[in-house]
Amino acid sequence: MSAPPISERGRLTPESSIRKLEFYAEDAQSRGATVYRLNIGQPDIPTPSEFTDALSKFKENVLAYSRSNGVVSLIESMKAYYHRNGLDHIESKDIMITTGGSEGILFSLNAITSPGDEVIVFEPFYPNYRSFACMAGVRLVPVSTSPETGYHLPDQKMVEEKITSKTKAIIINSPNNPTGMILNRDEIEMMQDIALRHNLFLLSDEVYREFAFDEANISLLSYPKLSQHVIMIDSVSKRYSLCGARIGCIVSKNEEVIHTVLKFGQARLSSPTLEQIAATSVIESGDRYFRQIVQEYKDRRDTLVDGLNQIPGVYCKKPEGAFYLMVTLPVAHAETFCRWLLTDFEEEGGTVMLAPGPGFYLTPDKGLHEARIAYVLNIENLRKSIRILKKGILLYNQS
Amino acid sequence: MSAPPISERGRLTPESSIRKLEFYAEDAQSRGATVYRLNIGQPDIPTPSEFTDALSKFKENVLAYSRSNGVVSLIESMKAYYHRNGLDHIESKDIMITTGGSEGILFSLNAITSPGDEVIVFEPFYPNYRSFACMAGVRLVPVSTSPETGYHLPDQKMVEEKITSKTKAIIINSPNNPTGMILNRDEIEMMQDIALRHNLFLLSDEVYREFAFDEANISLLSYPKLSQHVIMIDSVSKRYSLCGARIGCIVSKNEEVIHTVLKFGQARLSSPTLEQIAATSVIESGDRYFRQIVQEYKDRRDTLVDGLNQIPGVYCKKPEGAFYLMVTLPVAHAETFCRWLLTDFEEEGGTVMLAPGPGFYLTPDKGLHEARIAYVLNIENLRKSIRILKKGILLYNQS
Repeated sequence: MSAPPISERGRLTPESSIRKLEFYAEDAQSRGATVYRLNIGQPDIPTPSEFTDALSKFKENVLAYSRSNGVVSLIESMKAYYHRNGLDHIESKDIMITTGGSEGILFSLNAITSPGDEVIVFEPFYPNYRSFACMAGVRLVPVSTSPETGYHLPDQKMVEEKITSKTKAIIINSPNNPTGMILNRDEIEMMQDIALRHNLFLLSDEVYREFAFDEANISLLSYPKLSQHVIMIDSVSKRYSLCGARIGCIVSKNEEVIHTVLKFGQARLSSPTLEQIAATSVIESGDRYFRQIVQEYKDRRDTLVDGLNQIPGVYCKKPEGAFYLMVTLPVAHAETFCRWLLTDFEEEGGTVMLAPGPGFYLTPDKGLHEARIAYVLNIENLRKSIRILKKGILLYNQS
Repeated sequence: MSAPPISERGRLTPESSIRKLEFYAEDAQSRGATVYRLNIGQPDIPTPSEFTDALSKFKENVLAYSRSNGVVSLIESMKAYYHRNGLDHIESKDIMITTGGSEGILFSLNAITSPGDEVIVFEPFYPNYRSFACMAGVRLVPVSTSPETGYHLPDQKMVEEKITSKTKAIIINSPNNPTGMILNRDEIEMMQDIALRHNLFLLSDEVYREFAFDEANISLLSYPKLSQHVIMIDSVSKRYSLCGARIGCIVSKNEEVIHTVLKFGQARLSSPTLEQIAATSVIESGDRYFRQIVQEYKDRRDTLVDGLNQIPGVYCKKPEGAFYLMVTLPVAHAETFCRWLLTDFEEEGGTVMLAPGPGFYLTPDKGLHEARIAYVLNIENLRKSIRILKKGILLYNQS
C-alpha cells in the first residue's frame, strides 16, 4: 500500500547511539548474564525523600495545567539556588521552566536559528544535540577535540575558521558529557571573545554544574559582557537523581530569548505540574544532598581511571567533572566491540555495556577507538566492570 | 548592548491567544472581581482518585528515565482502551507515549514535513497548531469553515484547490476545539478520498473522543484504506482531567512514522515516569469515569447554547462535542470587547473571560465577531456567566 513519505529531517535524525545496543543487552540478560550498564547517564543514587513526600501531600482536586513558564514556587527556588551559587543577578523573569533540559535545548535552538542555519559544537558531544538540530532543520558544524588534551578546546583559530554567515550559535557543555572536561577560565574567555566578535549566541548546557571534582565549574552566566549572548540550559535530573521527573529550565538575561521560548512553552501548555511542585521541595531542601554525592562520584572517577589505565592498550586522561569519560580502547571498531561484549562474551556471570564512540562525533571515522563510560554504578560494581572489560579486550583481540 | 538576533520562526510564533488576556484577568481579580474563566480548556472535574493513589504507592529508590516510547504498562492500558473503543487492530508497537498531546503534534509534524512544506488546516482551529508549525518551519494553509454550517467541512473542491506540491498533510480535529464540531461519516470519506488521491498524511487530533453528545465520534484509525496515512494524536488530559500530567500518545499503523517519532522521543529521553505509572492506574480503572462526566458536559452545553441564543444579537449553533463552542457576538472587535470585559466591566461582583476569535483563524479579518467559550464551569456558574455576558454586551454597545 502506498504511504506518504517521511520527511528528510525525520530520516536524518539518528537513532540514540546510547540506547541502540539495548536490544543486545536485553538479550544477554535473558540468557542470565548480568549487564553492567555503563552506557547511560542514569544515576543509581537515591532520589531525595523530599520528592515523594511532596507528592503524597498533593491535595488539589484537579491536576491542572501550570503556568507555561513554570510553577512560581519552582522558579523562586531555582532563583535562590542560583543566588547560592554566586549568580546573584538572576531574577525570576530570567527563568523559564522546561520539561527537562531536553526541551530547553530544543526551544533555545528554535528561538535562535532558522532552518538552514549552522551551530558549532565541539565533538565528541552529547548525541541528542544532533537530533534536536535535525528537528530544527539546523546543521551542526563540529570542531574536534582529542583524547590527548583531555578534550579541551582547540585554538581560537580552529573555532573561528568554522564560522560562516549562517552560524548563529556555539554549544558549550561544561562539565561535559561525554568527556568530563570542564572549561577553564582561559577557554571561557576565548569563547567570550568569539561570541562578541561574531555576535553569536552561546548555548551553555550546565546540567552537571555540581559534578566538578577538582575546581568549581564556572557558569557562563557570570560573565557580564555575555549577558545578551548566553542561554543557559539547566536540569534537576542529574543533580538530584530526578531523571524521570523531566524538570529543567532555560536561564537568560536576554529578554527577547525568554519571551520567545515562552511562546514555544505556551504552545505545549505546561510542564508536568506535580513534578514541578515536588522538585521545588527538593531544591528548597538545600545543597546538602549533592554535596554528599559529589564525593562518591569523585571516588568512582578515581577508581575507574586508575583501573582503566592498567588495562594494556587502554588510555584515559583523568576527567575533571560530570560522571562520564571517553576511554580509548585497543580495538579497530568500538561499536563492533561493544556489541560483541553483549552478544559473545561473559565473565564473572556478566558483561559490560558501553556507548560506542562514533555516536558522539559528526566527523566520519572519528571515535572509532573510543567509548563513553558513565560511572553510575557503585565502586564495587565499577571494579567488577573493569575486570570484565579487561578480560573482554584480551579475548576480543585474541579471537 | 548588541545582542544576536532572534530567529524568524521565533518572531513569527504567536503568543497564546487563549492566555494573552491573562494579565488583565489577574488585574481584575486583584481588584476583587471574580473572573469566570471560560477562555481555557482546563476542566473543573476532579481528577480520578486512582491517580493520586498510584502516586502514593511509588516506592522506587530512584526516579529513573522510562523507555523513550513509554512505560510498558501504560502502552498496554492504552491498547486495551482502544480495543474497548472498537479499534481492535491497534497493537502495542503502533503506540508511542508522548509528553501530552502537544508533543505528539510537534513530533508528528517534524516526522512528515520539511521546512517550507505546507499543511492544510480548517479554520477556526486550535491556535497551538500554528505555534508548532512555526517551530517546524512549516506553513499552515487555512480552509475556512463558518458559523452558519456549525463549522462543518466545505466542499471537496474548496479543500483540493489549496493542495500544492508542498502539501504534506491535513490536520483533522474531531471533536473539534474550538468549534465543538464532530465530523460525520460523509466528511471523513471525503477526507479519505483526498488523502488517498493526493497521498497526504491525515494528522487526526482525537483528544476529545468521548465528548460526543449526540452520536459517537468516529476515529480515523477505523478506516483500513487510511492505515498508512493516519497519524492519530491522543491525550489523557481532558478525558480524565489530567491536564497537568502531560501524558498523551501518537498512534499509527505506519511503521515508518512510529520509527521516526521514536527517534525524536529518544532525543528527549522520556516522558515523566511517575505520571505515566499513575495514568496507567486511571486508564485501567475503566471507562466509567468519563461516561459520567459526558452527561455533565452535555447538560452544560445545552444550558450554554440556550442561554447564549437568548442574548440579543448573539448566535451559536449547537455544537456536537468537545467542551468548546464558538459564539458570534454583536461587537465590532471581539478582542477589544474581551479585554474590556476584564478591564472596565463588572456585574454581580465579577466578569467573564473569553478567548477572542481572531486567534483561531489565519485568514485576516476572520473571527472578528467571534469568541471561544470553554464550558469548564458548573451549570450554576455558567448561568451566572451568561447573565454577566448579556449585561456586558448591552453596556458595551451603549458606551
